Amino acid sequence: MTGRPSQTRRVARYLPILDWGRRYDRDTAVNDGLAAVIVTIMLIPQSLAYALLAGLPPEMGLYASILPLVAYAIFGTSRTLAVGPVAVVSLMTASAIGTLGLTDPAQIALAAGTLAFASGAILLALGFLRLGFLANFLSHPVIAGFITASGLLIAASQLRHILGISGGGHTLVEIGHGLWQNLGGTNLPTLIIGGSALAFLFWVRKGLKPLLLSRGVGPRLADILTKAGPVGAVAVTTLASWAFDLHSHGVSIVGTVPMGLPPLTLPALDPELWRALFVPALLISIIGFVESVSVAQTLAAKRRQRIVPDQELIGLGASNVAAAVTGGYPVTGGFARSVVNFDAGAETPAAGAMTAIGILLAALFLTPLLYFLPTATLAATIIVAVLSLVDLHVLSRAWSYNRVDFAAVAVTILVTLTLGVEAGVSAGVALSIGMHLYKTSKPHVAEIGLVPGTQHFRNILRHDVTTVPHLVALRVDESLYFANASFLEDYVTERVLRSPEIRDVVLLFSAVNEVDLSALETLEAINRRLADMGIRLHLSEVKGPVMDRLKRCSFLDEMTGEVFLSHYDAWARLSEPRPAEGGEDEGVAAQ
Amino acid sequence: MTGRPSQTRRVARYLPILDWGRRYDRDTAVNDGLAAVIVTIMLIPQSLAYALLAGLPPEMGLYASILPLVAYAIFGTSRTLAVGPVAVVSLMTASAIGTLGLTDPAQIALAAGTLAFASGAILLALGFLRLGFLANFLSHPVIAGFITASGLLIAASQLRHILGISGGGHTLVEIGHGLWQNLGGTNLPTLIIGGSALAFLFWVRKGLKPLLLSRGVGPRLADILTKAGPVGAVAVTTLASWAFDLHSHGVSIVGTVPMGLPPLTLPALDPELWRALFVPALLISIIGFVESVSVAQTLAAKRRQRIVPDQELIGLGASNVAAAVTGGYPVTGGFARSVVNFDAGAETPAAGAMTAIGILLAALFLTPLLYFLPTATLAATIIVAVLSLVDLHVLSRAWSYNRVDFAAVAVTILVTLTLGVEAGVSAGVALSIGMHLYKTSKPHVAEIGLVPGTQHFRNILRHDVTTVPHLVALRVDESLYFANASFLEDYVTERVLRSPEIRDVVLLFSAVNEVDLSALETLEAINRRLADMGIRLHLSEVKGPVMDRLKRCSFLDEMTGEVFLSHYDAWARLSEPRPAEGGEDEGVAAQ
Repeated sequence: MTGRPSQTRRVARYLPILDWGRRYDRDTAVNDGLAAVIVTIMLIPQSLAYALLAGLPPEMGLYASILPLVAYAIFGTSRTLAVGPVAVVSLMTASAIGTLGLTDPAQIALAAGTLAFASGAILLALGFLRLGFLANFLSHPVIAGFITASGLLIAASQLRHILGISGGGHTLVEIGHGLWQNLGGTNLPTLIIGGSALAFLFWVRKGLKPLLLSRGVGPRLADILTKAGPVGAVAVTTLASWAFDLHSHGVSIVGTVPMGLPPLTLPALDPELWRALFVPALLISIIGFVESVSVAQTLAAKRRQRIVPDQELIGLGASNVAAAVTGGYPVTGGFARSVVNFDAGAETPAAGAMTAIGILLAALFLTPLLYFLPTATLAATIIVAVLSLVDLHVLSRAWSYNRVDFAAVAVTILVTLTLGVEAGVSAGVALSIGMHLYKTSKPHVAEIGLVPGTQHFRNILRHDVTTVPHLVALRVDESLYFANASFLEDYVTERVLRSPEIRDVVLLFSAVNEVDLSALETLEAINRRLADMGIRLHLSEVKGPVMDRLKRCSFLDEMTGEVFLSHYDAWARLSEPRPAEGGEDEGVAAQ
Repeated sequence: MTGRPSQTRRVARYLPILDWGRRYDRDTAVNDGLAAVIVTIMLIPQSLAYALLAGLPPEMGLYASILPLVAYAIFGTSRTLAVGPVAVVSLMTASAIGTLGLTDPAQIALAAGTLAFASGAILLALGFLRLGFLANFLSHPVIAGFITASGLLIAASQLRHILGISGGGHTLVEIGHGLWQNLGGTNLPTLIIGGSALAFLFWVRKGLKPLLLSRGVGPRLADILTKAGPVGAVAVTTLASWAFDLHSHGVSIVGTVPMGLPPLTLPALDPELWRALFVPALLISIIGFVESVSVAQTLAAKRRQRIVPDQELIGLGASNVAAAVTGGYPVTGGFARSVVNFDAGAETPAAGAMTAIGILLAALFLTPLLYFLPTATLAATIIVAVLSLVDLHVLSRAWSYNRVDFAAVAVTILVTLTLGVEAGVSAGVALSIGMHLYKTSKPHVAEIGLVPGTQHFRNILRHDVTTVPHLVALRVDESLYFANASFLEDYVTERVLRSPEIRDVVLLFSAVNEVDLSALETLEAINRRLADMGIRLHLSEVKGPVMDRLKRCSFLDEMTGEVFLSHYDAWARLSEPRPAEGGEDEGVAAQ
């Protein structure tokens, strides 16, 4: 009997559905159903638009919004995260597939499915190996810079659809060059449709809600109507396109979207393709994971619910595999749609599954209605959606907080815009790590003295403290490891050479959380060098874990001085003149 | 008038010779001269041997021991460092040139000179840009592992000269394979010469000094005679080789070594060659710099002298450029010869310049005497010299200290032996940085309580402390930055979800030396999430520099709680029941 519950619990760890599914009731179902209707309405135009952004046929966007949602409902830990195609991942997909140089649409669709499969496999592997911490190496400034630059790139890339010209490119320079070259071919009807859609959507975003509120519409309904703006734009422009036969006037339309169930697809087995897609798939996985978890955690906290990041990897991994086998492309949790889902009252992941049914119905019955939908309308939807990602304010915020973080944001934005998304993320990560190592390689070391009348010690440069010429006390404000070990060595050597009267050096270790082997050898070297000069080395306030480690080697035996529990103990013992130098003048100097 | 001294000082910073040269007198000159004679005797066979190891003609070893020593005497800051060809850098030179696939000796010599020039240019650039801290990224375990593996590789690579067979290779597998294939061709006279030289040199190292001391020879003279062992082996085997005409019995000899001044040489200008040599030159520069500075600092500390690492880069850079333009190859400060120089009483870098004169005289007049010198003797010299580099003890030391450092040593040794020197160093550096980031990404966080009767707080898991159910206090034992920011977020969320009675969270920041922008955003997220749950967030014992930074942004205004100067203040204020929850039972629980 005892084996059963623990086994169930182990299964439940990987299947969160077993937890909430057991308590599922009719009220919850009604709430989930209502939220699902609203998210479905929002997701239909978005799915089509993001597939366009990824350079894929529109139906792939719909397919990526069906089975992946069901997979996440089974394996994900967030109650309200809405999964599907999102802007940044669609851009990264376009960039990854663009480098393959494919022209055959079937090959492109196969590559997109393979990319989703690879990304899903990576996420699942990271989840089972509990390697979610790898995502931490994307610092917030790098993510913020990357998202902002991606938003700009995406918006720029959609301008050609608004103008009705050809073009392309994956960097701002390429896109700008394409626009400039083809500007003469601007199609006026397209520009009118695209421009009006853009204006309408901006107005919906900024002006509709206050208007509705002032007309007495309830705030929740006003919110929902605002979110339905893109559907309105799609409906109106599709009607206009059909009524005025705009296609014959050069307006690009979506055309035939296959009707029916998503196809069953398999990833390509070509090792060359896998090699080419591995790095993009890794970056898509990590960027998607970071974005998704941050949304999920924000929403979960509002209801005191829990997110398990390593299980989220499994949920998102399963979603991507599901996308790969049903004609989709890489997916992740989206910010806007998750907030809508949450606000609309979704209580469990079942809402996601119901949304999947909604999109499935659309794929089964509504695709003929999309025939006349102008591409320019979808482009307008994308532009309005992604401009909310652009946050140049992060630059000034980082600048005022610290220069290192500013450099990380600025480099990530610049490299993403000029060299593309993969180079941008990589440069940001490398810079963050490099800067962090640089900062910790020159730790803050303060020479400290006694605050008169207390047992406290403070920086001699900032406070009025008592010191003794033959005793120097240094507080080390950083863990000691290979990158800063020699800095401490140089610092101590430099300091004692400046004052020949020094007889004792105390290192205050209250902020030292780690001493690695390099640092240990440095401490040994400092001890030997000070011994050669007739100076003793002492430590004070060494933390438990550091002390445990130091006891495993012979350093404490070789050390010429002592380890003091509190720095005041060290002061009390060492500030008196040593017997050997009893004759010297060692009056207490107040600095 | 005021401009002059500061200008002089600025020049003196780059020309340490201006400092010690002014006080140079006859006594110092005598001491330097004696040391120079002893180092010269030691350096002649070593220079020839290391050139052989680098796969270069023997005279290049001599040339690398003339002008570079003068350049270091002018620009270096160590009084006693002896510069020249060393074992590890010679191995790295052999490896770098081996990958070029050259066969023409003139081309090989040109590539070696170009490598020295590139290395010198890199060192000078790092010195002028004050980038010496880059060397810190080579952790001690990585260096120790690399030096040990290099010693093993060098010793293995010389065995074929002892056996008189052909072979080669840059990894242990290649070398072993070559030995195995050619073992049948072992030349007996060579083996006798090489084996006896090896046995003699080992005996000199282990047995000669005690013998001399027991015969009443003074310890200093005994030391010098011991160091002259290789010269004895060279003299005796050269005589034997000449007397018995060993060359005609298949013993490989040094042959004609050109007599005269070092040639003036220029580096190649081929950009392809520079591209191929850049990474090797960078690694040679950094490894050479790290080794040299560590020797120089050890010796300087014994006499309370100073080393300026950034100026050392300039000294070593000038030496390498000097080697490049006078027919040499990459050089650096050597451990054994510097100790000999120091022990023999050298007082200033003039000793190095005098050594250069000694080697110059050898190059001018003694090279004909080297004609019959067996290569096997030089190989024996190398083997005995490098086996002192092999320190497998570092493995057990690292294992007992901590597993992360052990992994760094073990991987560096394994990769160096199996894939070569460049891969070994690179793998070690990447692993050290990765492991460091991993460790700091999961910082130690302790939940703390009050030690009864004191104002001290300790880990509730290790000590018998007082806590209050509605107040949780967490001590964060690491600086907060992007790699561990989300860990703290997860930890705090997890903790408060476990105890619904929590109303206040205090983060004790005494060990937090930095909060970067990612961590700041995490703190903001924690604050918002706790606020959503009706919990206040407080900080205590925030350090000056961290506080300065937090004040630059709006976080402290948005924070729901307060910042307490001491953690006891926080306890005193918050451990009382809050007015709103006045009715609840909040008795103090002793854990």
